[in-house]
Amino acid sequence: MKNVTPLTIRYAETDMMGVVYHANYLLYMEDARTAFLEALGIPYQTMEDAGFMSPVLSLEVNYGSPLRYGDKAVMVTWVSRSTAVKTVYNYAIFREGDDIENSKPLFTGSSTHCVVRRDSFEPVSIKREFPQLFEAYKQVLEE
Amino acid sequence: MKNVTPLTIRYAETDMMGVVYHANYLLYMEDARTAFLEALGIPYQTMEDAGFMSPVLSLEVNYGSPLRYGDKAVMVTWVSRSTAVKTVYNYAIFREGDDIENSKPLFTGSSTHCVVRRDSFEPVSIKREFPQLFEAYKQVLEE
Amino acid sequence: MKNVTPLTIRYAETDMMGVVYHANYLLYMEDARTAFLEALGIPYQTMEDAGFMSPVLSLEVNYGSPLRYGDKAVMVTWVSRSTAVKTVYNYAIFREGDDIENSKPLFTGSSTHCVVRRDSFEPVSIKREFPQLFEAYKQVLEE
Amino acid sequence: MKNVTPLTIRYAETDMMGVVYHANYLLYMEDARTAFLEALGIPYQTMEDAGFMSPVLSLEVNYGSPLRYGDKAVMVTWVSRSTAVKTVYNYAIFREGDDIENSKPLFTGSSTHCVVRRDSFEPVSIKREFPQLFEAYKQVLEE
Repeated sequence: MKNVTPLTIRYAETDMMGVVYHANYLLYMEDARTAFLEALGIPYQTMEDAGFMSPVLSLEVNYGSPLRYGDKAVMVTWVSRSTAVKTVYNYAIFREGDDIENSKPLFTGSSTHCVVRRDSFEPVSIKREFPQLFEAYKQVLEE
Repeated sequence: MKNVTPLTIRYAETDMMGVVYHANYLLYMEDARTAFLEALGIPYQTMEDAGFMSPVLSLEVNYGSPLRYGDKAVMVTWVSRSTAVKTVYNYAIFREGDDIENSKPLFTGSSTHCVVRRDSFEPVSIKREFPQLFEAYKQVLEE
Repeated sequence: MKNVTPLTIRYAETDMMGVVYHANYLLYMEDARTAFLEALGIPYQTMEDAGFMSPVLSLEVNYGSPLRYGDKAVMVTWVSRSTAVKTVYNYAIFREGDDIENSKPLFTGSSTHCVVRRDSFEPVSIKREFPQLFEAYKQVLEE
Repeated sequence: MKNVTPLTIRYAETDMMGVVYHANYLLYMEDARTAFLEALGIPYQTMEDAGFMSPVLSLEVNYGSPLRYGDKAVMVTWVSRSTAVKTVYNYAIFREGDDIENSKPLFTGSSTHCVVRRDSFEPVSIKREFPQLFEAYKQVLEE
């Protein structure tokens, strides 16, 4: 499953270069993960309500052409790997209307996440604690 | 007591107008409050460690001349009013080297704060729960 | 005209109090102004493309009940005053589903804006330079 | 050359997990680069004043133990590679007082930068356009 979400740029997210400040792409990545989990039917909020959190373990990003205020763009998001203890999300930004299979993305990135208990930050196995999420990731990986 | 602290502008805090984005002045105000409490000998951290927090109830700001990346400026901070349940902080930004008594500030603002319990957000009297802070504010108001 | 827009809270916008960090309401206010101008048929981008910008001159905000991640809320936005050189926007946040005429808002604010030339930051009369915007504001004030 | 700078955590930089929000480490990385260039005697501002900018091309970060408000920490920064067209910065965060040669860092990262013309975003050779910077990087790499 590839989830495609429109990307809205806030004025506040630009900097004096006249483009989106590089750290703010991480906010777009989080918006994209949130939308992905909603598309899976397991909103992130559900996880926190159940006493868990899903912090970022690591990330990698590559900046191509800069985004500007007013640009129409989309974020394509997919899961490329998922085990009981780690899930890898991938991201690519395209101009609205671009062919997302054949165009060069404006930005690519990936982030690795685990799931931890809210009170102790202790990592858990989603296979055991969150079988619904584990199965959902497995299914989107098979598609 | 007027506390004067240098103000450092991050690249991230500018926007495509080429100046500091207006919402980021609230971060400078918070930095200034933090420094003020440290100058009083009661770091904000102490309050949270004791099970309290000090949220903002309201604020007012006036933007004069914009700040740019690389500008050397200072924030002048003082408490203009304090009761058992509310404290009002005032802020003014000047260029480094300006006479802070007679120059026109680049920015002025004020914010009103209460103290609440961390677990319930229930407001408390600092006169009763935080006599040290209540007395410290009283003293700086008398100066 | 009162414009009502849904408000989406990012995880990044919360702080360790577990609620939306106070400065981030200014981002919601900007989102609301952007949506208001779009509803007027004069997107903010149009203004910048024409060589103008609309900085914030001053603002006032009152925080009531805090917003939390996952909360469903709306921002109600209207213009309460507009002249050739200044426009005042007003904002109120309500829980989704609340009666916006009779409920107590979670947050209220106002901001005053001018229009300046992009290159010089020199204020201009929108009556002369942006008659379309001037008339649009006049019309929403009469409603 | 390894440059060590203290790291100050803003309340605004925490999130509802009670720790520093992951994207805000990129701000610390930028603060660290700024301090590094100042230590080299070539403040970033100088570059922009000369008509150039230095955007981020890519970055990689690994989150270890979370940072909390009030934590005392330092960022260690060094350049691991530099050519005429690309420079790689490295970062590691340690608790204040930790032995930075032998302790496990709380966070590590790297970022790759180029230098471009401000007006066109066209990449330039720092060897040709910024020989002072090119030589400075060369020298810190040899140390």
